[in-house]
Amino acid sequence: MTVVRAALFQGPAQPGSIASNLNAIGRAAHSAAAAGADILVTPELSSTGYNVGQRMIEFAQPSTGETCRRVCEMAREHGIAIGCGYPESDAGAVFNSTMIAGADGHSLAHYRKTHLYGDYERSVFAPGQDLVAQFDFHGVRCGVITCYDVEFPETVRAHADAGTQWLLVPTGLMRPFEHVALHIVPARAYESQLFITYVNRCGSEHGLEFCGLSCAIAPDGGELVRAGAHEDLLIADIDTTVLDRSRAVNTHLSDRRRDLY
Amino acid sequence: MTVVRAALFQGPAQPGSIASNLNAIGRAAHSAAAAGADILVTPELSSTGYNVGQRMIEFAQPSTGETCRRVCEMAREHGIAIGCGYPESDAGAVFNSTMIAGADGHSLAHYRKTHLYGDYERSVFAPGQDLVAQFDFHGVRCGVITCYDVEFPETVRAHADAGTQWLLVPTGLMRPFEHVALHIVPARAYESQLFITYVNRCGSEHGLEFCGLSCAIAPDGGELVRAGAHEDLLIADIDTTVLDRSRAVNTHLSDRRRDLY
Repeated sequence: MTVVRAALFQGPAQPGSIASNLNAIGRAAHSAAAAGADILVTPELSSTGYNVGQRMIEFAQPSTGETCRRVCEMAREHGIAIGCGYPESDAGAVFNSTMIAGADGHSLAHYRKTHLYGDYERSVFAPGQDLVAQFDFHGVRCGVITCYDVEFPETVRAHADAGTQWLLVPTGLMRPFEHVALHIVPARAYESQLFITYVNRCGSEHGLEFCGLSCAIAPDGGELVRAGAHEDLLIADIDTTVLDRSRAVNTHLSDRRRDLY
Repeated sequence: MTVVRAALFQGPAQPGSIASNLNAIGRAAHSAAAAGADILVTPELSSTGYNVGQRMIEFAQPSTGETCRRVCEMAREHGIAIGCGYPESDAGAVFNSTMIAGADGHSLAHYRKTHLYGDYERSVFAPGQDLVAQFDFHGVRCGVITCYDVEFPETVRAHADAGTQWLLVPTGLMRPFEHVALHIVPARAYESQLFITYVNRCGSEHGLEFCGLSCAIAPDGGELVRAGAHEDLLIADIDTTVLDRSRAVNTHLSDRRRDLY
């Protein structure tokens, strides 16, 4: 039996105030560690906020830059892994990236969003070219995708086929797309038989209203925990015995008619 | 603008009483026609009931047999297309089939369930080998799948790519799988941008409790109509202008990263 305790930080961001946002993540890491969590997951682009226009390009840093270094320091300081979103610069391009810092202060995983959403994202980001980013964490095979990625069943299928047991999904879901958090995410967990933590922001950023509703969904489609519209720190246990029991009953992965697709 | 009015018959079946079940479908066809519906959709295996054990094999008929002939007669009599599920015998095998009879009494479409569910179905049925069955109906491109098929996103993607605008899904969903009707079906409509009518039975059959919750879901994921746990005849309008508007905003089909799947 392997159990990982996850903390999901649903917070508002100060658009463009990186120091302020990282401080809020540090406070959440402190609270999450005090609650016994092994890892803190934060929303998409949690270091910068989402709706900062073309300034996103100025905020971009390399994966060896100040933001990632600070997140690694906070992870070591609080003794908890931290997932943080940031705009990543590399070879003249900017990516919508998520880095996972281990509790020892070293990087565990890194992912560049592959499915960009809408005109704004396409105007500042280049799409990632690697669909599946994974890391092993206390005996659980974890994967990372970002926001709009989860709306494509192919993404989650690729993770299930690559052995992902728990999929971390930092997101920035806005009104009126609540049905993504309420229906799509539970459907993904069930149809591909894995845990999903969907970690959204709340509050508004220059006219965009984020809808919260962060959640942890079990492989049987059941809600382990669900936030409302406001700031929250959710705790959920990711238990591989629950996964094994669900996969024994819900045989979707082996029931696929791959000969017909 | 093209609008088709659909009637969804959520009724209990008398397991093994084909005449009684067809009579109930005839009464529903009369009511549906009176409500201005162009087509009546009934649950999976609506002619025989679902939980009849190995007798399902005895009940099997060819597609030219008495059940299909009777459904075609009722369709012509009431001036409404009818979708009816039945066990089909062909070349020594039995299939879990759905036939669509046109209002003129001729067959519009025929489909054999490709994803069989559980030990019981696999003990009596052979799986269909054609994933996509379609028909044109008053200017709407329609598709037919059955129950467990819809739990596989690949099935609905194949329909979207083949041009299906409205997917008819006769089903036999039992407790405690309500989340399929409540989450999976809306997710499918949204992610593949088409209408779905999910038509379930209600009542119990030899210990299996069917959960109702039949629904019509719009391509934006919204519920057009939703039944409770009891017998009902739902009416929903399938409007291609709604589909066009949704696809203009929800660009999932063109946003796929097919280069990465």
